[in-house]
Amino acid sequence: MSDADLPTDSDEDAPDGAVPFTPVSEVGEFGLIDRMEAALGDAASARDLIAGIGDDAAVYRVGSAGSDGPRRVHVVTTDALVEGVHFDRTYVPLRALGWKAIATSVSDVAAMNARPRFATVALGLPNNLSVEGAETLYAGIAQACERYGLAVVGGDVTASARLTVTVTVIGEADEEAVVYRRGARPGDLLCVTGDLGSAAAGLQVLFSGKETMEADAEGDGAATSQPDLIEFAYVVERQLMPQARMDRVEAWAQAGVRPSALIDVSDGLASEAHHLSQAGTVGAVIDGGLLPVHVQTALAAQRFDQRPEAFVLYGGEDYELLFTLPEADAPKLAADTYAVVGQIVEPDEGVVLRLPDGNRVPLRAGGYRHY
Amino acid sequence: MSDADLPTDSDEDAPDGAVPFTPVSEVGEFGLIDRMEAALGDAASARDLIAGIGDDAAVYRVGSAGSDGPRRVHVVTTDALVEGVHFDRTYVPLRALGWKAIATSVSDVAAMNARPRFATVALGLPNNLSVEGAETLYAGIAQACERYGLAVVGGDVTASARLTVTVTVIGEADEEAVVYRRGARPGDLLCVTGDLGSAAAGLQVLFSGKETMEADAEGDGAATSQPDLIEFAYVVERQLMPQARMDRVEAWAQAGVRPSALIDVSDGLASEAHHLSQAGTVGAVIDGGLLPVHVQTALAAQRFDQRPEAFVLYGGEDYELLFTLPEADAPKLAADTYAVVGQIVEPDEGVVLRLPDGNRVPLRAGGYRHY
Repeated sequence: MSDADLPTDSDEDAPDGAVPFTPVSEVGEFGLIDRMEAALGDAASARDLIAGIGDDAAVYRVGSAGSDGPRRVHVVTTDALVEGVHFDRTYVPLRALGWKAIATSVSDVAAMNARPRFATVALGLPNNLSVEGAETLYAGIAQACERYGLAVVGGDVTASARLTVTVTVIGEADEEAVVYRRGARPGDLLCVTGDLGSAAAGLQVLFSGKETMEADAEGDGAATSQPDLIEFAYVVERQLMPQARMDRVEAWAQAGVRPSALIDVSDGLASEAHHLSQAGTVGAVIDGGLLPVHVQTALAAQRFDQRPEAFVLYGGEDYELLFTLPEADAPKLAADTYAVVGQIVEPDEGVVLRLPDGNRVPLRAGGYRHY
Repeated sequence: MSDADLPTDSDEDAPDGAVPFTPVSEVGEFGLIDRMEAALGDAASARDLIAGIGDDAAVYRVGSAGSDGPRRVHVVTTDALVEGVHFDRTYVPLRALGWKAIATSVSDVAAMNARPRFATVALGLPNNLSVEGAETLYAGIAQACERYGLAVVGGDVTASARLTVTVTVIGEADEEAVVYRRGARPGDLLCVTGDLGSAAAGLQVLFSGKETMEADAEGDGAATSQPDLIEFAYVVERQLMPQARMDRVEAWAQAGVRPSALIDVSDGLASEAHHLSQAGTVGAVIDGGLLPVHVQTALAAQRFDQRPEAFVLYGGEDYELLFTLPEADAPKLAADTYAVVGQIVEPDEGVVLRLPDGNRVPLRAGGYRHY
């Protein structure tokens, strides 16, 4: 139940009559999730369930207890992409949307150190989407499924006010291979795959392109300021067609390495580092000089008068893997497959960013909010 | 991918540019599903997958091949309930909505002769739903999970224009216990649990109550025609809080009976009988004199100037189980736990309703359309 993108406006005409009307914005994302868990009570626990709500995916045992070999588990994760909340059809191609719906759920499976197997897709179709549009969206779904080796085995199609794609992915792993958000120990290296902030930079480029198009339509000649999509092709692709890092999950298995903690970067590095801190059980020091930033991300930040660190720390949707590793395991991994961005420390040190001058600033937990 | 409730209006301002714009209404529910399957291609098949798109739930093997005892399978099904399409908040209490979202997916699991284990819930929250409203909805979800013995293990919460509840349920069974839509043989009895048409009758009562309220608000004194919700309590409950027939699945297991084919009645008896006919591989004769109709359904039909058979055949949302059984197995089941409504016949006889005068009328496949 992560990545909630919630209504922020209060509605004075509460339809619930005498019942108190607390707007969702008042309790916030995590407050709402806590309340949902409380409302579920015993309905959130079960035989064979190893981990439920609260990680990137739930984990449950499958098969009979007497089977030979390592005990297998399945993981399951559900995410919805809603038009006007998570994407804007004016600059998100339908094929990319289909790809992204699968890839982001596969990323949750990767974040458990598991492999995706099966998916279901519930599609909410507005009147202004054609059959051809739906086919294009499914072609993107198929493309991602082929890339990551999973199959769409079921789903639902319904009318909807806005285009909505809800994907559930089921993955599998050996029970002892699964890695959770909890598990980091003081001294562990804090590491990340790929580069960070590029998806947020890509969103800025796309959004700016849309504004320019709209200004052009009004004839005010603003087109000269439109960023070049070719110039920013890398960050745009990172936003539109993110990659789930199954390649790293495979590499860890090959190298016999199991991270001590693992999460995917969907809400920005600051938010994910707080998740790994396990509600303050450990601290984390992120070294501002070690943040992996692509040159296009830096250029986009410059163009839009922002700091690249803001994209990295509070942007979102990079879908890279943030993980912790005992220092002794680091030599087992190829140095060009990850970057060390900091270290897990004692809890009293908090979750902080170490600046080049040696000063430390606390990192707020707030992650990316769509729009 | 059953139960599609699709947009029916065409939009002249096609956003897709030069791409042909075929409105979904032109290809229909099953046409769209066929096109989605075609777009998926190889992405709809996988190792360990026994049955994918096209039944009430997908079926896949779990656990290692060398395990002792019967081979276990999991089943998975996804369904979305969308405000304004599947329900109207003016007469559907939020607790009932939560219950129904779970119960209808559990019914799909029952329709595979499997048992529900785990669920994920993706909630789309509009601004005008309070935290308290969301909690009430979750209380209904919890109530249904406790009733049917499954656990909510994950999900997603997002902003949405309309309240949307998308539920995925994972169930389990022995591989040889699973029953599919295909499997009926000429000579098999066509049987149904409970009574049919009551949920459609309940919807009429609720909808009529809403119209009366609205008329009252305009002060035209139409309140005298409002149906009594107490008088129609049974059919209203059948609409608002349908029961998944897990009790019958358990009874079959106790009795050592495995139906030859099985489906749940979500779209009306006519539509489901066509599904069991396996694209014309077998026929079905439904005896119009044997349809199980509750007295309140008959009274509601009278009140609203309709025929109860219309509720039974083309109504929907009863979530009873329609199954076929070799005649020799019938004595193993308690006679008060099901009704024989007809027989499976040779394919050239088609899917027909036998009237009391002996005449046969072909049953069209069209099922229930919400609103």
